[in-house]
Amino acid sequence: MTGATARRRGRPPRAESADTRDRILTAAREEFSERGYEKTSVRGIAKAAGVDSALVHHYFGTKEQVFEAAIEVAFAPALSAPNAVAEGPLEGVGERLTRFVFGVWENPTTRTPLLAILRSAVNNETAAAVFRRLVATQLLRRIAAQVDLPDPELRAELAAAQLVGAAMMRYVIKLEPLASADLEQIIARVAPVVQGHLTQP
Amino acid sequence: MTGATARRRGRPPRAESADTRDRILTAAREEFSERGYEKTSVRGIAKAAGVDSALVHHYFGTKEQVFEAAIEVAFAPALSAPNAVAEGPLEGVGERLTRFVFGVWENPTTRTPLLAILRSAVNNETAAAVFRRLVATQLLRRIAAQVDLPDPELRAELAAAQLVGAAMMRYVIKLEPLASADLEQIIARVAPVVQGHLTQP
Repeated sequence: MTGATARRRGRPPRAESADTRDRILTAAREEFSERGYEKTSVRGIAKAAGVDSALVHHYFGTKEQVFEAAIEVAFAPALSAPNAVAEGPLEGVGERLTRFVFGVWENPTTRTPLLAILRSAVNNETAAAVFRRLVATQLLRRIAAQVDLPDPELRAELAAAQLVGAAMMRYVIKLEPLASADLEQIIARVAPVVQGHLTQP
Repeated sequence: MTGATARRRGRPPRAESADTRDRILTAAREEFSERGYEKTSVRGIAKAAGVDSALVHHYFGTKEQVFEAAIEVAFAPALSAPNAVAEGPLEGVGERLTRFVFGVWENPTTRTPLLAILRSAVNNETAAAVFRRLVATQLLRRIAAQVDLPDPELRAELAAAQLVGAAMMRYVIKLEPLASADLEQIIARVAPVVQGHLTQP
């Protein structure tokens, strides 16, 4: 009895700790996805994960930091794949990036958290800052680092703008004919633009 | 006394009616801008305009219809200018459209309602439908109508996607260096892309 209490007060053992962290992150991702950044609270996340709010703070810190961690997990497929996508030969980078981004949006499992991130970033300054930091440092800078032309970061951002804009029109605003157009037809039109932004002198 | 009561119960006379409509629309635009579509209520708009909710319904109908009317007013500069922008010679259309869109975003007076519309459309299906209808019918179709190549509407939408994406990254997400870049530098990179979407065979 005393042992159990002491254990609960101290640091959780490693295995339980990893499990609890995962549970909190899953709950956080779901809460942020459903409610957006502003309406989500650390207390709500704790409740959904079946833990005390203090434990959420213990593992992650502030709500902003929970959001960042949840985004990183949600973005994992979007941020880990690009090793091959962003760092392959420059000549095919436009098509690789375009296929990659639309692939993430076409898949409902990765689309839901992305949509939550986008909504949160459009509505809230703090969420926008997190989005900015993650996307800029983890994706755009890596692409820009390959570009041996003036303004590599601006180029990467305008290429991303074409991709984000097209994804938003197709999957969020659902403008027709874009929303129902054949994916290959869209890729054929968008990939050269992305390529041009990155490599055209 | 009886006359005044009767007047209040009946249709307001034309001058008063136009004035009240304007007051309701202004209040609606401000409420939607501040709170977004979901959190705005017809009652809140009525209160801000100093009229009864019934009068808002009388003039505009449902909340969706008030939103549509408010967007149309907010969009007036964005939707009326394009006569010259969208319908001039095709060879300069990319630069005209790009200058026009960034001009609207650079101006704080037109940026605020645009931002509200974008936020509402990203967060709410009904607002997305209104955005879709207005943008598609009033702007994109007019541009597409000039394009004498296959898939004119898809072309217009992907051109718009580059513009909306770039504006979002610069003015909403505020990604650097895009957010602080010289406007002419951005136009020089974006205009040829818009032009290419619309006129490249």
